Amino acid sequence: MVKRYSFDPFINTGAVVREVPLSSSEPKPFSLSNGVFSLHMDEHMRIYGLGESIRGINKRGWIYESWCSDDPFHTEEKRSLYGAHNFLLFDGEERFGAFFDIPGRITFDLGYTDSDTVVITPERFALDLYIITGESLKAIVSEFRTLIGKSYLPPMWAMGYGQSRWGYVTEADIRRCADAYRDARIPLDMLYLDIDYMDSFKDFTVNSERFPDLGAFSAEMKERGIRLIPIIDAAVKKESGYDVYDEGHREGYFCKDEQGEDFVVGVWPGMSVLPDFLNPQASRWFGMKYKRLTDLGIEGFWNDMNEPALFYSEKGLNNAYKEIKELDSKRLDALSFFGVRDTLVRLQNAEDDYKSFYHETPEGRVRHYDVHNLYGYRMTESAYNALCELRGEPPLLFSRASYIGAHRCGGVWTGDNHSWWSHILQSLQQMPGLNMCGFLYSGSDIGGFNGNCTRDLLIRWMSFALFTPLMRNHAAFGTRSQEAFAFGDTEVFRHIIELRYRLIPYLYRSLKEAVERDEMYFRPLVFDYEDDEIAATVEDQLMVGDRLMIAPVYRQNAAARHIYLPEPMTQIRMHEGDISTEELNEGWHYVSVPLGDVVFYTKSPLELAKPARNVGELNFDDTETVGS
Amino acid sequence: MVKRYSFDPFINTGAVVREVPLSSSEPKPFSLSNGVFSLHMDEHMRIYGLGESIRGINKRGWIYESWCSDDPFHTEEKRSLYGAHNFLLFDGEERFGAFFDIPGRITFDLGYTDSDTVVITPERFALDLYIITGESLKAIVSEFRTLIGKSYLPPMWAMGYGQSRWGYVTEADIRRCADAYRDARIPLDMLYLDIDYMDSFKDFTVNSERFPDLGAFSAEMKERGIRLIPIIDAAVKKESGYDVYDEGHREGYFCKDEQGEDFVVGVWPGMSVLPDFLNPQASRWFGMKYKRLTDLGIEGFWNDMNEPALFYSEKGLNNAYKEIKELDSKRLDALSFFGVRDTLVRLQNAEDDYKSFYHETPEGRVRHYDVHNLYGYRMTESAYNALCELRGEPPLLFSRASYIGAHRCGGVWTGDNHSWWSHILQSLQQMPGLNMCGFLYSGSDIGGFNGNCTRDLLIRWMSFALFTPLMRNHAAFGTRSQEAFAFGDTEVFRHIIELRYRLIPYLYRSLKEAVERDEMYFRPLVFDYEDDEIAATVEDQLMVGDRLMIAPVYRQNAAARHIYLPEPMTQIRMHEGDISTEELNEGWHYVSVPLGDVVFYTKSPLELAKPARNVGELNFDDTETVGS
Repeated sequence: MVKRYSFDPFINTGAVVREVPLSSSEPKPFSLSNGVFSLHMDEHMRIYGLGESIRGINKRGWIYESWCSDDPFHTEEKRSLYGAHNFLLFDGEERFGAFFDIPGRITFDLGYTDSDTVVITPERFALDLYIITGESLKAIVSEFRTLIGKSYLPPMWAMGYGQSRWGYVTEADIRRCADAYRDARIPLDMLYLDIDYMDSFKDFTVNSERFPDLGAFSAEMKERGIRLIPIIDAAVKKESGYDVYDEGHREGYFCKDEQGEDFVVGVWPGMSVLPDFLNPQASRWFGMKYKRLTDLGIEGFWNDMNEPALFYSEKGLNNAYKEIKELDSKRLDALSFFGVRDTLVRLQNAEDDYKSFYHETPEGRVRHYDVHNLYGYRMTESAYNALCELRGEPPLLFSRASYIGAHRCGGVWTGDNHSWWSHILQSLQQMPGLNMCGFLYSGSDIGGFNGNCTRDLLIRWMSFALFTPLMRNHAAFGTRSQEAFAFGDTEVFRHIIELRYRLIPYLYRSLKEAVERDEMYFRPLVFDYEDDEIAATVEDQLMVGDRLMIAPVYRQNAAARHIYLPEPMTQIRMHEGDISTEELNEGWHYVSVPLGDVVFYTKSPLELAKPARNVGELNFDDTETVGS
Repeated sequence: MVKRYSFDPFINTGAVVREVPLSSSEPKPFSLSNGVFSLHMDEHMRIYGLGESIRGINKRGWIYESWCSDDPFHTEEKRSLYGAHNFLLFDGEERFGAFFDIPGRITFDLGYTDSDTVVITPERFALDLYIITGESLKAIVSEFRTLIGKSYLPPMWAMGYGQSRWGYVTEADIRRCADAYRDARIPLDMLYLDIDYMDSFKDFTVNSERFPDLGAFSAEMKERGIRLIPIIDAAVKKESGYDVYDEGHREGYFCKDEQGEDFVVGVWPGMSVLPDFLNPQASRWFGMKYKRLTDLGIEGFWNDMNEPALFYSEKGLNNAYKEIKELDSKRLDALSFFGVRDTLVRLQNAEDDYKSFYHETPEGRVRHYDVHNLYGYRMTESAYNALCELRGEPPLLFSRASYIGAHRCGGVWTGDNHSWWSHILQSLQQMPGLNMCGFLYSGSDIGGFNGNCTRDLLIRWMSFALFTPLMRNHAAFGTRSQEAFAFGDTEVFRHIIELRYRLIPYLYRSLKEAVERDEMYFRPLVFDYEDDEIAATVEDQLMVGDRLMIAPVYRQNAAARHIYLPEPMTQIRMHEGDISTEELNEGWHYVSVPLGDVVFYTKSPLELAKPARNVGELNFDDTETVGS
């Protein structure tokens, strides 16, 4: 059951698609006082949800903030990352879900200040609150999901494995990567184009020296079973003569400052402007620009920098320079030095800048700061609507920033993580939260985006990620090569990625069913075994679809781990490409998982396809069944 | 057995105290070629050592660099932290220790580039190499330790619990903290003074407004059983009229630039100079300055910023300002912006600066860069020698930067960590490496230095740290209060800290025996159970002294964990101050450890003292025995 409480919302976020009558009672079980929602937690209460936020499956014990942020350091203390996913599921003596539909900042203190008190503080008290009850954790999630509408389902080929690197600059770089995968006989469905394919980072342009004929190259790759998936950044270079800028400027499609001038920010292309995705005309105008790339045979995109990320604003930069130039370096003490340095560091994603520009929405002019968390969602929506119209079917589409609602238009990846062992577990723990909020096509950058990957890290990460719908290996400029062929001895990678393809019939069906039934593809164990007190504490295993359970190894030099079985299951082991099974009883097991083996569990027989070089070559009718 | 190989060392680092005849053979089992030592690793080889370096007890699979670094972000990818501890213990088909005695940079690639190859690269090929063999892992460590001399043993009161905070500014702040501990009846032996006690961050001065009579205040605190432990930073403020500066400048006791002028760097006091601790006269001169504080009743110190940390140099800062002032902000693109910002960020601890100053050593003038890793060690030695002379007995002394050799003069703490759950485990994993290298009096900042601590994090951290000889709660300026009384409900903290005091008879005897016998106080399980293949993989338990084993909980919201017993042991549980025991068989156990309980293991009966308010009040004769 859903109850809706309304507190002067000033804009329709678009998250909710179902009419819910207003409740006039108190928003129980919260106490509401002075614009703050609070709740006493009993000792055993656990809290799930909050989308891609980090720090465990059970969120109790930390403070979170919804504020879409371009932050590449996903360390434990972070309160916000790229997404704003304001759904929580409280599981204590009281059991209920709560969705705070608010386009601006909101803080969730879940036992941080006081161990047994929840304090939820919307910065501006203008929101809708939905309280959702149901017979089980799963039922509450499904009820919430019917409220926010069906999740995005990608084309089936998007279940393939893909390779990306910020650093592939030319057609030749991309072709070399495709060849290396082919030579190693490792399946591959997608190659992603990071920012260097563009002409001076201008959206919807192609650098003609690097890609003289992108259409022909795209066709060549597709012939080989590989799709090119370019990046689109949110901001548009401010450059007279660049038609996207000229058009948008002329039509008033960019966000404006207080004086009504285009608000100018520094991002990859240098001085740029921000399309006003909250303006329906601007949104449609921008979306239709993707046609320039679909006309070249492109069938999928990733939308990036759409928190929106701001390196600096023209205004902020000028102020900072002024401050620096007035300083006398001879008399600088340590604190002044750090002050100057931090002035430059703080230019990035500055709150003042987010307060300095405006959107033209159907509800009128609104300050960006008050609707900040909708920006990435509305960019994805812009692309999704246009691409569906252009293609007649959904594209492959995923985004860095998001708000609930965006789950109907695309997937998300978890952004610019690191080549850290802890980020394998972190990304596993992000998945159920994302799934609760409807983001089913999701995954993390395998091997880690920032930092240098090692062979063993890549193997272990991939052994988990082969179960994530979005399975992409992606690395940053200047980092060590981390393609599946980069560490020599490619057989181990071939076996793991082949296993992914063999599982696609099950995984895609699971994803499709989760979409159709408003269910989760990844679930914490406790969602399936509500009365199992141990299952409720397991933070490093997940249920996948209706019958699988995964329990990856995520520690350097570990060759075994403890695995909890809430009921008897069949253990499936892939060793050097061969599958073997073993029946295990319920309870704890200390299971040997040598590097390169993949071990997972099934509750009932599982169909496995034959390996294929890409999704198009998969034969769904020619499967073998393992497990009992 | 120890073999010594000498490759043109240009300075005696002071690490080794025993004469070892030169070996003329090849430095087996390493291959030496082009100044690089390499070794093939068999599949099962594990590598221990490298002192305080992070990333697991088994170091295999990453690349490390010895370069004493003031780096407050102890994330997985870091290759260096504050210490340079070049001892490794290889445990494969070949089993041996190796100590690379080199005062400058050296890189240890332990399977990072190639999973089964060790590559060790001294930047300048000028070093002594010691290859150590023995009958067991423990025997190899002890053999190495006899080579480097007896470890520092602190006064017994230094085994007490201490509180610190960068942010206690005045006598009143300190007294308030002492009172709060007293009111909560939580034992306390030390209160540390961070940089604000000084007058303008000038070493050996006391701010007379904040501490009008430090001698009287120190006596007042000592009357209450609490000792004040001030910080001493390495750099000396360049300020004419400040006698320490004037004297050192006149005598030529500061590091010089190429032209023979004092090399000027920016650190906390602003423009400063660096005492030349490698010059024996300068070292003695600086050490004797501690008398100003011992005359006020001070009995212990922590030496900090002695990597040495450089915020900037006068030269670097002027260059950076020049670069910035020449830029035209109007035409700045993203990469130029980041360039400017990074120019300022990179001023800190710049390699160029370390190359720009010199020491006057008994072996002649040497460039700092080539002996960088000795600086912190020599500062500790300076203080230790003087303080022993002044006091007639060893002081409490510990340091942030260190090199092997410093272990004879003081302890180390693991520097500026974070309030992250992962840093509980990280600090546990740092302990055995430090112990191998002789650093026995060690510990981490409990609750984390940077970032905001939570109640549960502090409880879990303390439940581990009560076993570390150096037990200090320390937090940075601007962070949330994290004293044991800061989270309300102080009983749980009182019980944990009281348990520490009850264990001091065992812990101090263990520490003393480890010093006397050249043994480790903290050991990985495999050191005691060499044939136990599971013990060899356990990375989150340690042996403490001759009979205890610890297995702390280090995950948010966890109330149980798996614990491996290599043999039957008695489980000791402290629950609300009460001790209970349970006999457990060898093997894995899934043990419930609710927040506030401390669970540990003993192989044989353990004596526990009665709780006391401080070490001075402990009665070593009035103990009870637990376990069987």
